[in-house]
Amino acid sequence: MGHIAYINGRYVPQSKATVHIEDRGYNFADGVYEVIAIHKGQLVDEEPHLVRLRRSLDELKIGWPVTENALKVLMREIIRRNHLKEGMIYLQITRGVAPRDHVFPEYSKSSLMMLTRRFRPFDPEVIAKGVAVITIPDIRWKRNDIKSISLLGNVLGKQQAREAGAYEAWMFDENGDVTEGTSSNAWIVSKEGELITRHLSNEILGGITRQTVLKIAREKKIKFVERAFSIEEAQGAQEAFLTSTTSFVKPVVKIDGEKVADGKAGPLCRALLEHYGTYMDENASNP
Amino acid sequence: MGHIAYINGRYVPQSKATVHIEDRGYNFADGVYEVIAIHKGQLVDEEPHLVRLRRSLDELKIGWPVTENALKVLMREIIRRNHLKEGMIYLQITRGVAPRDHVFPEYSKSSLMMLTRRFRPFDPEVIAKGVAVITIPDIRWKRNDIKSISLLGNVLGKQQAREAGAYEAWMFDENGDVTEGTSSNAWIVSKEGELITRHLSNEILGGITRQTVLKIAREKKIKFVERAFSIEEAQGAQEAFLTSTTSFVKPVVKIDGEKVADGKAGPLCRALLEHYGTYMDENASNP
Repeated sequence: MGHIAYINGRYVPQSKATVHIEDRGYNFADGVYEVIAIHKGQLVDEEPHLVRLRRSLDELKIGWPVTENALKVLMREIIRRNHLKEGMIYLQITRGVAPRDHVFPEYSKSSLMMLTRRFRPFDPEVIAKGVAVITIPDIRWKRNDIKSISLLGNVLGKQQAREAGAYEAWMFDENGDVTEGTSSNAWIVSKEGELITRHLSNEILGGITRQTVLKIAREKKIKFVERAFSIEEAQGAQEAFLTSTTSFVKPVVKIDGEKVADGKAGPLCRALLEHYGTYMDENASNP
Repeated sequence: MGHIAYINGRYVPQSKATVHIEDRGYNFADGVYEVIAIHKGQLVDEEPHLVRLRRSLDELKIGWPVTENALKVLMREIIRRNHLKEGMIYLQITRGVAPRDHVFPEYSKSSLMMLTRRFRPFDPEVIAKGVAVITIPDIRWKRNDIKSISLLGNVLGKQQAREAGAYEAWMFDENGDVTEGTSSNAWIVSKEGELITRHLSNEILGGITRQTVLKIAREKKIKFVERAFSIEEAQGAQEAFLTSTTSFVKPVVKIDGEKVADGKAGPLCRALLEHYGTYMDENASNP
């Protein structure tokens, strides 16, 4: 049985789900999205994802296509229709369909699209396998705090990583400091043993997994600091890792071909990954 | 009778033209576009538009959905089907449909979409009515030379202009120099009588109307220089105007509320507009 997608009020076979060619998401990247993990059939961190979605929509002055409560119901329904236990919901909201013109249309109804994907069950041993990253200049726009679908810069960066045999590209600003990955946040444990991830600003997306890992660190009394760090600092770090909804907490064992420490997943990263697994078990929303 | 659009091999009523929700244009802004004016039923500057399209596709490593020659045939056919005399073709090519993943898909067929719009016949008197612009920081990415659909920054800028009662927003870089408008190139005639438009680089799109106006200037022995100019220089200029496929050569008579010279269309701008009209009459491609 194929996947069922949701598009503007209807559940349809995913292969047949379409939008109009003048949807502003298609002509202008005028929309936002969220990726929410499903664990044991339940939404992980639903509330923070909805808070961020609200913020993205507000920043772009895009209206809600349905109420927030209705969206919660629709997400549960798409999980149910797809018999989804482990995986994710991708949801996208755009400013809707209107004759092509840069200016916001006077009348338009926001489009809502959702689809799901199945994952293998969460397995810390698999996730803990280290990955390589490369570093590239951050050429993106100046509002990366908005989770918009204007992702061409991220796409080009990720492709560059893949062509270099790496899993992710860490982008750096004009100071040579790492901003974030093309679809993940960047972390290190410095030479001095300090857990570091970049502070929030317009330059990076406030990742929900980033936020949850900070929350876990706080609870477990693991000291951390939110500040910029350079590529050099990362290469000389004790540990490095990345976080995202679909990568969870993933060790980075190589940066630009240079091993990070001994080139294996570090102890703090592994501990945070284990904690994250426990957190998912305990905190998945009731469906 | 409604408009006919073209989408991936089919001509369909525009209201019914759709693309798949996993078209990478919809999820990642992973695509490019062109807007080509139609004058007297013929394509204006078809060749330069196709040259630019080729460059945009090459930069993003997106394949042609059909051959360039086939595209020429398809454009003529959509003009014919829509009985289009004065107006434009909007054409968009994306990397196609694939399960959502930042990395380029291994297999995908580029999507091609085309639609048309009707304009009133070219009338220099109407076009010569001056417009106001505001100036805003350029927050876009660093590859504005690619005519991509990653246009959210442009959309936000144009909306800001409209809310300020202006026609366009001129964006400025960190030096306070004007890069370009959100959907047009920026020009001035300086205090010293010099015709100026910003030089080509990754920061601006190489507008086809910009290129044609430079060609006309060359032919008419009007001196010009391609260099950056500041907002202050623009406000103190003798004339200011903007160019685009759909705005042609349009006087800018107010910048951030300050009149440019006497607040009326200047003589050089008017002359270039007249020349541009003649150029269109003479150079529209044979259908």
